[in-house]
Parts: sequence; C-alpha cells; structure tokens
Amino acid sequence: MKRHLISAADLTRDDAVLILDTAEEMARVADRPIKKLPTLRGRTVVNLFFEDSTRTRISFEAAAKRLSADVINFSAKGSSVSKGESLKDTALTLEAMGADAVVIRHHASGAPYRLANSGWIDGAVVNAGDGTHEHPTQALLDAFTVRRRLVGRDAGIGQDLSGRRITIVGDVLHSRVARSNVHLLTTLGAEVTLVAPPTLVPVGVESWPCEVSYDLDAVLPKSDAVMMLRVQRERMNAAFFPTEREYARRYGLDGDRMAKMPEHAVVMHPGPMNRGMEITAEVADSDRCTAVEQVANGVSTRMAVLYLLLGGSEPAVTTTNARTEENK
Amino acid sequence: MKRHLISAADLTRDDAVLILDTAEEMARVADRPIKKLPTLRGRTVVNLFFEDSTRTRISFEAAAKRLSADVINFSAKGSSVSKGESLKDTALTLEAMGADAVVIRHHASGAPYRLANSGWIDGAVVNAGDGTHEHPTQALLDAFTVRRRLVGRDAGIGQDLSGRRITIVGDVLHSRVARSNVHLLTTLGAEVTLVAPPTLVPVGVESWPCEVSYDLDAVLPKSDAVMMLRVQRERMNAAFFPTEREYARRYGLDGDRMAKMPEHAVVMHPGPMNRGMEITAEVADSDRCTAVEQVANGVSTRMAVLYLLLGGSEPAVTTTNARTEENK
Amino acid sequence: MKRHLISAADLTRDDAVLILDTAEEMARVADRPIKKLPTLRGRTVVNLFFEDSTRTRISFEAAAKRLSADVINFSAKGSSVSKGESLKDTALTLEAMGADAVVIRHHASGAPYRLANSGWIDGAVVNAGDGTHEHPTQALLDAFTVRRRLVGRDAGIGQDLSGRRITIVGDVLHSRVARSNVHLLTTLGAEVTLVAPPTLVPVGVESWPCEVSYDLDAVLPKSDAVMMLRVQRERMNAAFFPTEREYARRYGLDGDRMAKMPEHAVVMHPGPMNRGMEITAEVADSDRCTAVEQVANGVSTRMAVLYLLLGGSEPAVTTTNARTEENK
Repeated sequence: MKRHLISAADLTRDDAVLILDTAEEMARVADRPIKKLPTLRGRTVVNLFFEDSTRTRISFEAAAKRLSADVINFSAKGSSVSKGESLKDTALTLEAMGADAVVIRHHASGAPYRLANSGWIDGAVVNAGDGTHEHPTQALLDAFTVRRRLVGRDAGIGQDLSGRRITIVGDVLHSRVARSNVHLLTTLGAEVTLVAPPTLVPVGVESWPCEVSYDLDAVLPKSDAVMMLRVQRERMNAAFFPTEREYARRYGLDGDRMAKMPEHAVVMHPGPMNRGMEITAEVADSDRCTAVEQVANGVSTRMAVLYLLLGGSEPAVTTTNARTEENK
Repeated sequence: MKRHLISAADLTRDDAVLILDTAEEMARVADRPIKKLPTLRGRTVVNLFFEDSTRTRISFEAAAKRLSADVINFSAKGSSVSKGESLKDTALTLEAMGADAVVIRHHASGAPYRLANSGWIDGAVVNAGDGTHEHPTQALLDAFTVRRRLVGRDAGIGQDLSGRRITIVGDVLHSRVARSNVHLLTTLGAEVTLVAPPTLVPVGVESWPCEVSYDLDAVLPKSDAVMMLRVQRERMNAAFFPTEREYARRYGLDGDRMAKMPEHAVVMHPGPMNRGMEITAEVADSDRCTAVEQVANGVSTRMAVLYLLLGGSEPAVTTTNARTEENK
Repeated sequence: MKRHLISAADLTRDDAVLILDTAEEMARVADRPIKKLPTLRGRTVVNLFFEDSTRTRISFEAAAKRLSADVINFSAKGSSVSKGESLKDTALTLEAMGADAVVIRHHASGAPYRLANSGWIDGAVVNAGDGTHEHPTQALLDAFTVRRRLVGRDAGIGQDLSGRRITIVGDVLHSRVARSNVHLLTTLGAEVTLVAPPTLVPVGVESWPCEVSYDLDAVLPKSDAVMMLRVQRERMNAAFFPTEREYARRYGLDGDRMAKMPEHAVVMHPGPMNRGMEITAEVADSDRCTAVEQVANGVSTRMAVLYLLLGGSEPAVTTTNARTEENK
C-alpha cells in the first residue's frame, strides 16, 4: 500500500481487500472488555480540518484513540491559517511537531494531494474529504458495510464485491462520496449505476466505469444495494436543482420504492439523513437501512487505514496482544 | 442505581449516599503521586454540548481522564447539528461510534431524558444541565460539600443530611441548580428553604418539599448552609426582575448578613460569582464560602458518577489498585 | 529554578542552560520507536488561551502529551470568561480542578504574572505570550536553535552563547518575541543588535542590554544569526508603520542581503512567515533558514520546561526509563 490515502482511485483491488479485512479485525476490538489496542502508542495523529465536520473528525479521533495514538485537533478557524498562512507553512509546522499522520479535510479539491506530494511532510496523509473530489474512507466504510451485509462477516474475509450491483442516487455532480465510491466499488468488481437529475450528472461521466440512469424505479429491482446521497440543502435553490418536492418525488426513497428492491438488498446513507427529502423516515428506520452501521464501520475502517499507513510497532490484533492489553 | 443520571429526583437516599461515599474515595486519588485510576481505560466518554459551558465541560473531562477514559468533545456549534441534524441522528452516531457515556448539556429541558429513554443509545447518559430543568451533578457536588463541611470527611461516610437546614437564595424560577438541589437535599433528609423575589418563585412551588420565604434576614439564623444562586445578568432587564440595586439590597449576601448565620454555617455558590451582585467580595473570599471547594468536589463527584454508571472493569479504589497504578 | 516561567528576564544563565540541556534530552525522544515518556503521567496541563494561537497551543499540547500528561484545552471564547468572569475566578476553578500546570496566553501584558503571584494557584504557570510583554518559551526555543546550529548538538551541552552576535529585525516595539529574546540571549552571553524602523523602536531602549541600528545592511556582515520578526499585517496601515513596499525594501531579508551574512550565519523566524514581506521565499526556503527546525525545537523546549517545572515523578530521560517505556 502507498504511504498516503488520497483517492480511492489509487487503491488496487488487493489494497482495498486488505483494508476491509483489517477493518474486520479492528471491529473485534469493540467486543473486548478494554476496547483499545496499544499499536499506535506514542504516535501523533493530527486532525487538520479546514471545513467543519464534527462527525468525520470524531470518527477519526475515536479510531486513533482506540489505537492508543495521541490526537491533536487543529481547526483552521481562528488559527493563523485564517490569517493567510499557506498550506505549506501549516504542513511544515505539523511535520516539525512530529505528526505521524495528518487527516485533512479541505474545501479545495486537491489540497490533500498537494499536502502528500509536496515533500513538506514525512507523515502519512489521509484525505477526509476535499471539495467535490474524493472522500476515500467514506467509500471504504461503504464497501465494508456492503460486504458484511451481502457476503457476511467471516465469509467476507478475502472477498471483493464481484458481481454485486450497487446504485448511487442523488446529486452526483457535487458528491465526493459518489466519486470515491464509483472508483472503489468498481475496483472491487461491483457494477455501479448512478441515478441523478440530468442537471446533476457530471460532464464526462461517459468515461466513468459505470452506468447512468434517470429512472430510479427501473433500476431498483436490479440493485443489491442502493446508496442515497445526502441533499445539501444549501444548494436547493440553485437553478440546476429540482424543487424539494420534485426531488423527493423523483429521487427520494420511500416505502413503496424500497418494496421494489430485491429482498436481500440494503439501503445505505452516509448521514446525516434529511428525512422526508432523499429518504423517508420509514425507510431510514427500517432494518434494511445501514446508516447507523456505517457510522460504526467508519471507526473500524479508519482504524484499519491508520494502522496500515502508520505500520504500528506491534501486530494489528493478535491473541497475545489482546491478552497483554487486557492484563495490563 | 439506574443506568443514567437524568434527574436528582430519580435518586433514592441510598443511591445518593453511595455516590457521595464513592466521591470521597475518588477525592483521595488527588492526593496520590499519580493522580489517576485505570478503571475506565478503553471506555469513551463523549461531552455533547449544545450550550457552551467550559467549566462544566472541563470538570467532566478532568473526571473522565482521571479515570483513564478517552474523552471526545462534541460541541454542537458548527456541527451538522447546527445544520438541522436531529438529536436522534446525533445519538445514533455517538452510539455507533462506541460512546460508553454521553454527557449532555442542552438548552431544552428534557433533552437528556429523551436521549436516555429513546432506545437510541446503549451507553449511559449523564445530564450536565438541561434548560431550566435539572443539573443533577451540581446538586450532588453541593450535597457532598455540605456533608464534608457539616458532618466531616470520614465521619460523613454512610451519612445523609438529616436535620440540616439549607437555604437556597435567588432566581429559583429559572434555576436548574435550585430544582436539582431541592430534590436531592430533601431526599437526603435536609430541610430546604427557598428565598426568592416573588416574581421569581415557580408556579406550583407549594407542592415542592420545601419552605418558601421572602425574608432572607429572618431565615439566615436558622440555616446551616446558604446557597446563593448566580444571577443571570442577561435576565436582568426583564420586567419580572428587580433592579440590580434592589436585588443586591434584598437578596445579596454581604458581611452583615453573613454575621447573622450560625457560626458553623457555610456559604455556597455554584460559580462563577457576580461579586457585588448576589454576593459581596468580602463574603466570597471568606473561609465560610465553599465556592472553590465545590469546584474540586465537582471533579470527585463526577468521577464517582461515571465510575458507578460505567461499572469500571476494576474496583473503584483499592489499596492494591493504587499500588499497581503507582508502580506502573 | 522558580516554580513558574513568566519572563525570560527571570532566568539565570544556569537556569537557561539547564532548560536547553534538558531540551536536548527531550529531542531524543522523537528518535525512539515509541515517542513518549511516562514522566508526567497523572498530571494535568491546562492550556488557558484568551487569544487564539493554534500553533503555540498545539506545540504545548504535543509537548505535554509526549510526557504522558493529560491535556485540557480551555479557550476563553464562549466560556464564562467572555461573560465577565474574572481571571481570579478562572484561576481558582483551574486550581480546584487539579491543574498541575496552566499554560496561559493573554492579550494583556502581565496577566501570567498576576496569575502566578496571586496565590490563586498552586500549579506552575507558563507564559505562552502576554500582550506586548514576553513569550519566554519562544526565546528558549530560539536560543536552543542558535546553540544547535552554531555550537552543535552534543558540543552545545552545558554551553551558553558567549560571544555570538545575534540581530533581531522588525517591529520590536510590539514584539514580545523580541523582548524575551533580548533578555534571554544576553543572559546567555550573546551580543544582541536590534534593527527596526525608527517609529517601531521602544521608548527607553537605551536601557536595554543591546545595540540599536537602523541600517540592516551594515549589521548583517557582523551577525551569526539574524532573527526576522513577523510583520503583523493588521498594524500595517497605522501611521507609525512604513508602507509594505518601504518595509520590505529596507527591513526585508532577500537573497542579496543574505549573501552579506557570514557563511556560517543562520536566518531565524518564529513563523508563520509573510513571504515577500519580511522575508523572501528564496530565503525562507534556503538551508540557512531555521524556521521549521524552530517549530520542532519548540516541542522539545516546552517538554523541558514542563518537565522541570512539574518535577516529574521519574527521571527525565534515562536509559532504564527508555527501556521500560519501549518494552511496555
């Protein structure tokens, strides 16, 4: 695996399967009396957030702490960054302070790439969402969730998603989640279909390794998983956006629509959900909706990513290790 | 004891005495060379604050860290909560991330109750102040302070506050501190008297298990402890509020008034104090004022609450434990 | 050494050398597999920041965590402090919560002194910058950087800066960094020269133990280190300030000017740098510029200060200690 995680597009099938398998091991830590591994003790993970995102920040924070790393939160608001400090100077500062990993969230697409490839920093860079570009750990936790639900927890180990049909629904144009998922899911062998209002399909989508459809009802019966994107309400009044009512009617998932899906198929959502907009409360609260599992899986997946990138000083999860930690 | 701490009214006398006794044990940790217990290692405590309250937040943070728990601070400002995420979705997120305890501060009375009784969350919920409703850990630390001062540190173990006369003075109507204290102190056997401007006495106070008086000077000689409530200056210009001068004159505690109290009686204040308003500097800085002890006792009391709710994997404080920790 | 670090002026030569020597030991921790010492386990360090300063805050946070202390961040914004709580009440609160050290940043010159000498607090107080007064840990890390570069890492142990010629350039009037450096560097035996626009030289500078010059080009050939102060852009339009262009022309350091320095001389900057203003990109990125090292040295120096003030329960860094930590 590379030293950074910038884009889901950079991952090979084997990289991705290794991360998912490691995440399954990490998930077991939550079942122990002491939910903690000593593997990253003495390492420092910096959460460098140029955009507010409490959910993503605390998911990485929980993951790092569960691996015994020290976590430092660096919100760009009110820092010298907001006084015009360059990304370069910020990077050099974090590097000099001994950051072993920098988890970066940035409003500008490409900022994590710049951070990782500039030579400014020796530590690992993890993209926690950049502009409309990518959000690779979200795609990894989504793939992890699909594999667990469709293939099984133990049965899934070593497996990819060959032949699984996954539909992504919503504002694909502005969605880094959609972009990362298309890359990762197809790398893992899945067949991906995008369903979006015509004005919200990216230019050049023809070259993406997926199908595009404008008819949600036609696609549902052929989907093993349906991933509903979150509507960004702040975009709602833009000219290219359908009205709320129109959006919910054509692209929202309600009980009737869910009934068209195969029995084994699941509904996914990265959260937080706009109940009544892209998803009804009935669907959101049904057993088929994996939104809550996705959050839990996010911590396991991020533990796996941090562990693999930082090459912990001890084996990830071993019986011996577990015993040592518990007896301590 | 229940799994959550939502209201002082939920506590039986034995629950309350157990918490105070455990808090006395916790207070001893501060006297050790290494002021830390390993009891909550691997547990995660989330401070979910919808209202700013640095003092309460850092008191819980210090308590949790002294028990070796991991702490994650979640301020609702700037989070998806402020973009309209429901309390339910926030709760499901924290649950999925593996929060063992959620310490919640909320501007809406009843929010902690909703969080605890919704089934959204498996972890323990601790109310850190909700609207004008309750602030149970404040009442517990107040009771702890009264017991220490009036009964004694060692002599107090196992004891309640039977027969002690406690007076609460100020804006009772808007005070969650007053409400929680009335419940807890009477449960512990104390006799409580409220003194407040007529417009700041809650409707239905007749059904509360306490006396009401409008004459502070008459009540002081019969008080073992006088608890001054903080004046919320932002309420000061409201129609129902006396002028500042009038308030200080009738309900403020100065040296002359303090002289009317029995010699053994103490003055309490939850802080921060408005010197010159509800309390003069002379009283605030006298030995009889327990405001500073209350802060220290707050950490011990919150350690006890977290310990008892989370049922640490090791005995609270034992000699062996202490030794192990120190030798580590 | 005293119990607090308020001013570089309080340090004797031996105090300062001890801190620099301890910082060299601390710097070695970063080379270990587990970059952490157990020396301050169970101690609580509070970062009490009345002014935003993410860089300084995370430097102290990283230092404290590397020593295994618990860190609590207390930003005065949105706290009861902003509602008018006095420094005294804040101090009593932190003391009562068991803060072993309070790292304070304050917009008012003298606030750390007041905090340390009031009797409000038993813990150690560390000044992390107060108004235009002092920033002693910045001066210590600067001295550490100079000693390493000019004398050597191992050769420097036990040494001061006798006979080294150090030039400080910029807005000396408003700079706490300049003030602390003049005190510390002269205590360590260095010869200091200030170069500033005439309107930005403090009144009474004649009594300072240093030279003043208005001619940068004349001073450069006689400097072993040139310390460029950061221009505070918010001061730029004030009457006493030269225009940006004029400032850069007369007091900025570019490649031509750097060439006038002796070959062994270094360029220092506390960061973040205004490239194109007080320093050109060419100089900022050259090997002679120590800005990035200064950041790393800041963590080691602050570790040394916290360790020495808190008198850790274990020897700072010993071979035995190191082994224990690594084997744990």
